[in-house]
Amino acid sequence: MTADHTSPVNFNENGLVPAIAQDAESGEVLMLAYVSAEALDRTKETGRAHYYSRSQEALWEKGATSGHTQRIEEIRVDCDRDAILYLVEQTGGACHTGYHSCFFRRIDDETVGEKVFDPETVYDWDRWLRT
Amino acid sequence: MTADHTSPVNFNENGLVPAIAQDAESGEVLMLAYVSAEALDRTKETGRAHYYSRSQEALWEKGATSGHTQRIEEIRVDCDRDAILYLVEQTGGACHTGYHSCFFRRIDDETVGEKVFDPETVYDWDRWLRT
Repeated sequence: MTADHTSPVNFNENGLVPAIAQDAESGEVLMLAYVSAEALDRTKETGRAHYYSRSQEALWEKGATSGHTQRIEEIRVDCDRDAILYLVEQTGGACHTGYHSCFFRRIDDETVGEKVFDPETVYDWDRWLRT
Repeated sequence: MTADHTSPVNFNENGLVPAIAQDAESGEVLMLAYVSAEALDRTKETGRAHYYSRSQEALWEKGATSGHTQRIEEIRVDCDRDAILYLVEQTGGACHTGYHSCFFRRIDDETVGEKVFDPETVYDWDRWLRT
């Protein structure tokens, strides 16, 4: 079994590729994160989006803490096979700040996104600050 | 003038951030490439999408060769300011293979995208192969 067989994705020197999550229904781009071969395998197996956290150096299931999971509808690769697109059904909001999308701000700082939950009620920030 | 003033973007150790180009009208995700501070400045100045080519190690205006430019409608940053979203009006196709989007294939290799031009008539492949 070759690497090509198990994964048609060209992972970078750190074993990662960027993955875009897009709301399959509205088309809204929700977030950009990184995926390892293991994260991609877990995503395929479970039908829920998994990523690799570079800061935590760990496999990460989106929504494992918040409940704001992403059900996979389709996975695409780009022409060079070095970027991935997850088409998802997003439960709650994708962004830890409470917005539906992490891209809730224009580059001039004007907020254009929709806030869909209060992060204070979802995340245990004390735990986050301790770790 | 501080770096924060000239750019609210958290560029990585190589001076780049990933940038997603999305069709502003259809919502289709067109491509993922990388942007340097200079590329972002040129994008803002010209209203046309610029990127940084890691393989060519050079600033790159999308469509400079093919004519398939991207007119910027809006630029967004994500919550961590380490990814950018270009909302664009795409002339022709975003992908050098002739598809409207670089994400024209599912990960199981089934083609789902729309081919909108013949790359043989657009690119001088001999020149590409020589460089």
